[in-house]
Amino acid sequence: MSLDLDSVDVTAANALAAGTNKPQKRIVASGLGGKLMGTKDMINVTAEQLAKDSINSLLVKDQQERERYAKNMHISEQPWTAANWHEHVNWLNVYLVVMIPVMGMAAAFFWVPPQLKTLVLAFGLYVMSGISITAGYHRLWSHKAYKARDPLKIVFALFGAGAVEGSIKWWGHSHRVHHRYTDTPRDPYDARRGFWYSHLGWMLQKPNPKYKARADISDLADDWIVRVQHRHYLTIMFFMAFILPTIVAGYFWGDYWGGLVYAGILKAFTIQQATFCVNSLAHWIGVQPFDDRRTPRDHFLTAIVTFGEGYHNFHHEFPSDYRNALKWWQYDPTKYLIWVSSKLGLAYNLKTFSQNAIQQGLLQQQQKKLDRLRSNLNWGTPLSELPVWDKSEFFEKSKVQPGLCIISGIVHDVSGFMSQHPGGETLIKTSVGKDATVVFNGGVYAHSNAAHNLLATMRMAVIRDAGAVSETFSIQERMMAEKDAKKAN
Amino acid sequence: MSLDLDSVDVTAANALAAGTNKPQKRIVASGLGGKLMGTKDMINVTAEQLAKDSINSLLVKDQQERERYAKNMHISEQPWTAANWHEHVNWLNVYLVVMIPVMGMAAAFFWVPPQLKTLVLAFGLYVMSGISITAGYHRLWSHKAYKARDPLKIVFALFGAGAVEGSIKWWGHSHRVHHRYTDTPRDPYDARRGFWYSHLGWMLQKPNPKYKARADISDLADDWIVRVQHRHYLTIMFFMAFILPTIVAGYFWGDYWGGLVYAGILKAFTIQQATFCVNSLAHWIGVQPFDDRRTPRDHFLTAIVTFGEGYHNFHHEFPSDYRNALKWWQYDPTKYLIWVSSKLGLAYNLKTFSQNAIQQGLLQQQQKKLDRLRSNLNWGTPLSELPVWDKSEFFEKSKVQPGLCIISGIVHDVSGFMSQHPGGETLIKTSVGKDATVVFNGGVYAHSNAAHNLLATMRMAVIRDAGAVSETFSIQERMMAEKDAKKAN
Ligand code: HEM
Ligand code: HEM
Ligand SMILES: [Fe+2]
Ligand SMILES: [Fe+2]
Ligand SMILES: [Fe+2]
Ligand SMILES: [Fe+2]
Repeated sequence: MSLDLDSVDVTAANALAAGTNKPQKRIVASGLGGKLMGTKDMINVTAEQLAKDSINSLLVKDQQERERYAKNMHISEQPWTAANWHEHVNWLNVYLVVMIPVMGMAAAFFWVPPQLKTLVLAFGLYVMSGISITAGYHRLWSHKAYKARDPLKIVFALFGAGAVEGSIKWWGHSHRVHHRYTDTPRDPYDARRGFWYSHLGWMLQKPNPKYKARADISDLADDWIVRVQHRHYLTIMFFMAFILPTIVAGYFWGDYWGGLVYAGILKAFTIQQATFCVNSLAHWIGVQPFDDRRTPRDHFLTAIVTFGEGYHNFHHEFPSDYRNALKWWQYDPTKYLIWVSSKLGLAYNLKTFSQNAIQQGLLQQQQKKLDRLRSNLNWGTPLSELPVWDKSEFFEKSKVQPGLCIISGIVHDVSGFMSQHPGGETLIKTSVGKDATVVFNGGVYAHSNAAHNLLATMRMAVIRDAGAVSETFSIQERMMAEKDAKKAN
Repeated sequence: MSLDLDSVDVTAANALAAGTNKPQKRIVASGLGGKLMGTKDMINVTAEQLAKDSINSLLVKDQQERERYAKNMHISEQPWTAANWHEHVNWLNVYLVVMIPVMGMAAAFFWVPPQLKTLVLAFGLYVMSGISITAGYHRLWSHKAYKARDPLKIVFALFGAGAVEGSIKWWGHSHRVHHRYTDTPRDPYDARRGFWYSHLGWMLQKPNPKYKARADISDLADDWIVRVQHRHYLTIMFFMAFILPTIVAGYFWGDYWGGLVYAGILKAFTIQQATFCVNSLAHWIGVQPFDDRRTPRDHFLTAIVTFGEGYHNFHHEFPSDYRNALKWWQYDPTKYLIWVSSKLGLAYNLKTFSQNAIQQGLLQQQQKKLDRLRSNLNWGTPLSELPVWDKSEFFEKSKVQPGLCIISGIVHDVSGFMSQHPGGETLIKTSVGKDATVVFNGGVYAHSNAAHNLLATMRMAVIRDAGAVSETFSIQERMMAEKDAKKAN
C-alpha cells in the first residue's frame, strides 16, 4: 500500500479492540463457575500479541513465537499420551458439564421417579433460563442489539446465571472473540476442528496459549448488573440453578430430590447442550444463504433447540441485528420476546441492518451459486475461440461437409440435430449451406431462448465482419422489434 | 445482413413450414364438429402471406394488405353493434361448447337425478377421454414427443374424439399454429387478448382473416389413423361421446338419460373446459422458471385440471419433450402413462431435451431475476464516477470534514455510521483521517461480506494510483491468504 505511513497503527487499534485503552473497572473474581464459557487462559493476551498477525510485523514476531515455544512446549501442543492425558483435561469443566449431569441422569434413572408437577417446573425454568441466555447474554449483552431497562436485565442476569454457563462477563467476552475470529485458530469454538471440538471438546481440554484472544468488553464492565452478577456469580448460580427449584418443588409438593434432579441438574444440562449446539450444530448443518465462505449455517433444527438462534449464517453477517430469523415462518421466539418487551417499554433502540445490506448478501450468494452452475454447463465455444471464415470459405466448406448453416453471423454444424428438430427435418435441410438468420429469428419462426442455447452448442466458426455476437437471442429480439416498429407505421 | 443473397428464401421456407410443398393426402371433410379447435377461416393462407412479415418483403406487402382491407373490411374488424353482433358470432361453436352443455346442466338440475354408477362411468370416461387428448392429441400427434403403436393410437383416436374437441387433424393443426405464433396476432388463442378470449372467446367469434396461419401437418395426413378419424369424425365423436355412455348406463342399470347427460354431455363439457384452461389459465397464472418473455406459465392448479399439462412455461420452451413436469413432486400423470406405455412396448422413442438445455433456461431466468433485484439495490457509487484525489488532498479535506477514512484505496465518509458500528465507535474514530485498509481487512478484524457492502455505500472519492477496485472483499481475501501463506513458511 502506498499509504502505509498514514495507516492506522495496527497494534494500537488492537489495543482498542481488546479494550485495554480504558481503565477497566476491577471486578472481583466470581470463583470457578463464572468461567464456563471462557477461561482466563484463553484471553490473557496483549494487543501486541493480537497485532502480530498484522501484515507489517508478522515475520519478526512469528520467529520469536516459534523460538519461545520450541524451548517450552505447552501441554496443548504435545500429543495425548497415557502419561499426560490428565494434564490435557480441564477437570473443572469436565465436572460441571459432564460429571454432574451424568450423576443427575443416574439419579433420575435409578432413584428419583419424575413427577408431573416437577417436570412442568423444570420446563418453565428451562424456558426462562434459556431465553435469558439468548435474549440477554447473547443479543443484549454480547451484541448490543438493543437496549433494555433494569428490571428486564435483572431477570436475564438471574435466570441466565441459572443456566450454569458462566457469568455475563465471561460469556460475552468469549462470544465476542468467537465473532471476531470466526474460523481461525483464535476462535474458541473453531468449527473447522470438527463437530465435537466445537460442541464440547474445546471446553474439556486446555487451550493453546498461542491462540489467546481478547475483545473489548468495557461496556459490560460499565454495567452494574453485569458487575454484580459477576462478583456474586457462584452464589447466584447455585441459588437460581439448584436451590430455587429444590425449594419450590419441595415446599409445594414435597419433591425435594425431583426438584434438584429434574428442575435443577437436568434443566441446566439441557440448556448447556442447547447453547453448545449454536457453536457446533449451527456451524455444521444447514444452508448458507448469505455467505458460504465461513462455517455458520441456518437450520430449523438448531433454531428449535436454541429459542431461535439457528439462523446463524444471517447472525454472523449481521450480528447486531436483534433478529436472527427474518421470515415469518422461521422460528425465532427470542426476537418476538424482544419485540414485545419493546412494546411494553422494557426494551428500546432495537437494531436492524438495512434491507439493502441484507438483500445484497442474499443476492451475492445466489449469484455465486448461479456462476458455479453456469460453469458446469455447455454454452458452446466462445466466439473468440472460433476460427474466422470468409463467406467464400463457408460455401466451399459447405460443399464437402454437409450440415453447415449460418445464423446470426455464426456458422453452425446442424448435421447431428436435423432429425431431432422439433420443427421438422425439412426446414433445417433447406437451410443447410445458407444463411438462415432471418428464417430462424422469426422469418418462419421466432425460436425460444432454449433453441438459441441449443444452437450455441453447434458453433463451428465466425463469419468475418458479420457482426456476430454471443447473445443470438438478442438479435432475434431486435429483428422482431424492428418488424413491429415497421408494422406500426 | 451482408449475406442476404445467400439467405434461405423466406417465402419458400414458409411454404415448407406450412406443408404446402408435399402433395397433401386429400381427406374428405368430416363435417362441422371436426373443426372445434380450429376453423377453416383461420388457416386458409398462402406461404406468401405468412412470409409477408419477413423483414425483406414487409413494407410492400403491408401496403397491399392495408389497401385491400380498407375497401372491404372484414366483420372481425368492425365494432360490435346491435345490428351486426350476430355476424360476429361463430354460432356452430356457441352451440357445441355453450348451448348443449347448458342444456345438459339444466337437464341434470331439473329432470335427471344423478346415480352413483352413472357418475362413476362419467368419471371413467372423463379420465379416458381427457388423457387421450393430452397423451394422444397433444404430446403424440401435435408434438411428436414419442412414437406409439397402433393399438394405443386407436384408443387415443377413439376416446379423444369423445372429448368433442374436433379431429386430431384440426386440433393438431391449430395447436402447432399456437406454438409457432405464440403471443402474436396469428396465435389462435392469443393470451395477450385476455383470459376470456384465450379460454373461449376466440372460438365463439369469427377470426380476423388477416391473421390466418398454417403449420405443416403432412405427418398427420400420413397417419392412417388420423385420416380415418378425420373422415368419420362426426360418427365416431357422436358414438364415443354420447351414444356409448347412454347405451352402457341404460343397458346395465337402466339410466339412459343419466348416461347421456352425465357421462355424455357434462363429461364432454368438463374435458372441453379443462383443455381450454391450457390456453387460458396456463398462459395466465403461475410462475415462469424458464422464460418470462412470453405468456406461458407453470401452475399446479392448471396441471390438476389437465392431467399434467400445467407446466406450460416448460412446455413452450421444450415442446417435443414427452414430459411437462420434471420434478417428482409435480403432477403429470400423462407423463407416467407414456412412460408405462413405453415399458409395455406400446410407445417408444420418448423424446427429452438435454439436461444441459433445461438447466440453461432455468439459470438464465434466475439470472434475469437477480439482475433486476441488483439494479434496485444501492451498491455505492461506481468507482469510475467518483472524483480522484491525491493523498495530500485527502489529508487536507480530512481536516475540514471529519469522518473521512481510506480503505482499499477508496475514501469513505463514515461520519454517519460511527455510532452504529457493531464493532464499537472507538475503533472507527481512531481510523478517521487515516488509511484503515489493514485494520479493516483483518489487521484487527476481517469484516464480513455484508460489512464490505455497507462500506461501498459510503464512497466519496478514489485515491490516485492506489489500485482501488470495486470488489473490496477480494482485497481482504488476498490479504488474509498472504498472511496464511507467510505463516505456513
Ligand atoms: C439450426 C438450428 C435450429 C435449432 C437448434 C432449432 C431448434 C428448435 C427448437 C428447440 C424448437 C422447439 C420450439 C422452441 O424451442 O421454440 C424448434 C421449433 C421450430 N423450428 Fe427450429 N431450430 C433450428 C433451425 C430452424 C430453421 C432453420 C427453421 C426454419 C426455416 C426452423 C423452424 C422451426 C419451426 C417452424 C419450429 C416449430 C415451432 C412449433 O411448432 O412449436 N428451425 N426449433
Ligand atoms: C468504516 C467502515 C466500517 C464498516 C462499514 C464496518 C462494519 C462493520 C460491521 C457490519 C460489523 C459487524 C460484523 C461483520 O459484519 O463482520 C463490524 C464489526 C467489527 N468491526 Fe467494523 N466496520 C468499519 C470499520 C472498522 C474499523 C476501521 C475497525 C478496526 C479498526 C473495525 C473493527 C471491527 C470489529 C473489531 C468488529 C467486531 C467484530 C465482532 O465482534 O463481531 N471496523 N464492522
Ligand atoms: Fe457462531
Ligand atoms: Fe453471536
Ligand atoms: Fe400454450
Ligand atoms: Fe403444446
